[in-house]
Amino acid sequence: MTASPNDTQLKNEIIENFGTPCPVIDLDIVEQNIRRVQALCDKAGVRNRPHIKTHKSPVLAHKQIEAGARGITCQKLGEAEVMVDAGITDIVIATNLLGAARSGRLAKLQARTPVTACADNPVTLNAYAKAAADAERPLDVLIECDTGQKRAGVETPAEALMLVSKISQDPMLNFKGFLFYPTLDSWDATQTFYDTLRVELEALGIKAEIVSTGGSPNLVNLGKLTGATEHRAGTCIFNDRMMIEAGIATIEDCAFQIYTSVVSRAGEERGILDAGSKTFTSDTGGLTGFGHILEHPGARIHKFAEEHGFLDLALCNNKPVVGDIVRVIPNHVCVAVNMVDQLIAVRGGKIVETLPVSARGKLV
Amino acid sequence: MTASPNDTQLKNEIIENFGTPCPVIDLDIVEQNIRRVQALCDKAGVRNRPHIKTHKSPVLAHKQIEAGARGITCQKLGEAEVMVDAGITDIVIATNLLGAARSGRLAKLQARTPVTACADNPVTLNAYAKAAADAERPLDVLIECDTGQKRAGVETPAEALMLVSKISQDPMLNFKGFLFYPTLDSWDATQTFYDTLRVELEALGIKAEIVSTGGSPNLVNLGKLTGATEHRAGTCIFNDRMMIEAGIATIEDCAFQIYTSVVSRAGEERGILDAGSKTFTSDTGGLTGFGHILEHPGARIHKFAEEHGFLDLALCNNKPVVGDIVRVIPNHVCVAVNMVDQLIAVRGGKIVETLPVSARGKLV
Repeated sequence: MTASPNDTQLKNEIIENFGTPCPVIDLDIVEQNIRRVQALCDKAGVRNRPHIKTHKSPVLAHKQIEAGARGITCQKLGEAEVMVDAGITDIVIATNLLGAARSGRLAKLQARTPVTACADNPVTLNAYAKAAADAERPLDVLIECDTGQKRAGVETPAEALMLVSKISQDPMLNFKGFLFYPTLDSWDATQTFYDTLRVELEALGIKAEIVSTGGSPNLVNLGKLTGATEHRAGTCIFNDRMMIEAGIATIEDCAFQIYTSVVSRAGEERGILDAGSKTFTSDTGGLTGFGHILEHPGARIHKFAEEHGFLDLALCNNKPVVGDIVRVIPNHVCVAVNMVDQLIAVRGGKIVETLPVSARGKLV
Repeated sequence: MTASPNDTQLKNEIIENFGTPCPVIDLDIVEQNIRRVQALCDKAGVRNRPHIKTHKSPVLAHKQIEAGARGITCQKLGEAEVMVDAGITDIVIATNLLGAARSGRLAKLQARTPVTACADNPVTLNAYAKAAADAERPLDVLIECDTGQKRAGVETPAEALMLVSKISQDPMLNFKGFLFYPTLDSWDATQTFYDTLRVELEALGIKAEIVSTGGSPNLVNLGKLTGATEHRAGTCIFNDRMMIEAGIATIEDCAFQIYTSVVSRAGEERGILDAGSKTFTSDTGGLTGFGHILEHPGARIHKFAEEHGFLDLALCNNKPVVGDIVRVIPNHVCVAVNMVDQLIAVRGGKIVETLPVSARGKLV
């Protein structure tokens, strides 16, 4: 298995059917990545609950479930609505859904299909209780806990326990467990945090049914948190330059590429691609440059305009010419997929289908 | 006229009808901005050809034309298709449309409604000639010239003249003029570049019908290029933090805001918004932080996750609490609008309509 080879015929088919820039996924690599993550979860003895924020495609979510995933993770209510429409029922929405709860949308979804939501504060819990009452169906809730990332999540076990207590006292809320996102160096802190919770809750006769860890970079740490029941990873279905940099993937594991034309070579050492920040976004992910060009690894995408990528060709021996089509692996695939309404799927060097990015562009 | 006041009732209507995050435009400010730009062009004696990359809305494009704009500028063929569908006929597409030409889409559009395309190289011109032949209708072409920005565009008048000559020899191409994007300090160079072209072309009996300058920051330089016939500016219909920083607009001129909920206050000096890089993008525009919070100017959005904005509240006297809805002016409005399928339009503190961002998400 290799990343789609430098296939002139495929490039011509892409540009003749769709033009450039064009977002392309290789289904063979996608399926290999899905199997790999499932195998890692199986080996570690945790359930796999892939985060669909990366692909936003019910078709790919079903592939993940067919490969063994327990359910899926969403980051927005609108994403969950699309997945429920597609027949997926076991969904964790991994965030404080305050805006969605107050719009009435959470209640409407909960009335159709029960979901599991997350909270790190009492205001969110109050909004959830109202949504559950409106839906006439209690809502399952995970408490989000922060163990060093300084993202969402309560910072202490005491706060988490206070929220568990509040949930327990509310007939419209069910305590379901905890959501963690350990950093690479905070696994010990996460273990201590969770063990404190476990001991306190056992004394109350309460058990966390879900103890969730997250992140594609944490695939190498699966099983490290004793008591973890499941893992949610998103990026690893496609991979990107950040995953390569993190040592999680190789170029050959990157299933998503932007096919883009070299449209200008106004200077000897510079060139311009027809894809910029409205195709890739300007996420750097802490890396230098804005993507890896498979055909010209020495070419550096050093700047973006909205629809142009600016190439520094000083270190590029075999410089591209106007009209060349090149394939770029983005720094951050999750945001690149989020820019488009459809992905062109190829297999074995042939275009096989167009996959709608159905859960993109949802406000809440 | 002020930016929409801190109107609790409007905020409640927004969150109850749409949830958060929610992209909102104030039509009174939009129309004021449209009138202002038209008046500046009128005063300078140049035609106004607004760049619709910022709003991607046929409704707003029609407002610009009704206010006096000659036509519009697009950056993608797919944008132009949407505008033609909406009955707009005078369109410049300001880029080397190589990918679109090779897909057959340029020919299809040209057969319906003639457009003006740009080129800075012979490969693009060859693709244009083929598209025009397929459309059975000659294509109008502007030569893009670079006078220091190191964006697209030929770097010397000699190269431009070579392309004019190539166009003149091709029965399927019409030479229409030149496209410039002067930087704030390259107006003299642009004048010299254009004067050279003008003199050479006059000797051949050729006249540039369109001499186009661009950019919202260049609104203060309208009329500075002797011979310029029109100007294309995009951002100034909405404005943003970059325009404020550039001295082109005030906070009151910013028509686009993201309404976002404070969803977490896990730490004393930090908070989390339910809008991140998938709402604003991570464009910094060279600024510190990722947006201006109208209610809490001392709060700094210092980092984004995909769906979260991380607040540093250390310098914020009146700290927001969980559940607060705040309005954020983005660093770069063009890319923020590009993230959503619709904008919520308000006027006088009331929701009046939902505007589709119809020209968003086009591949070519």
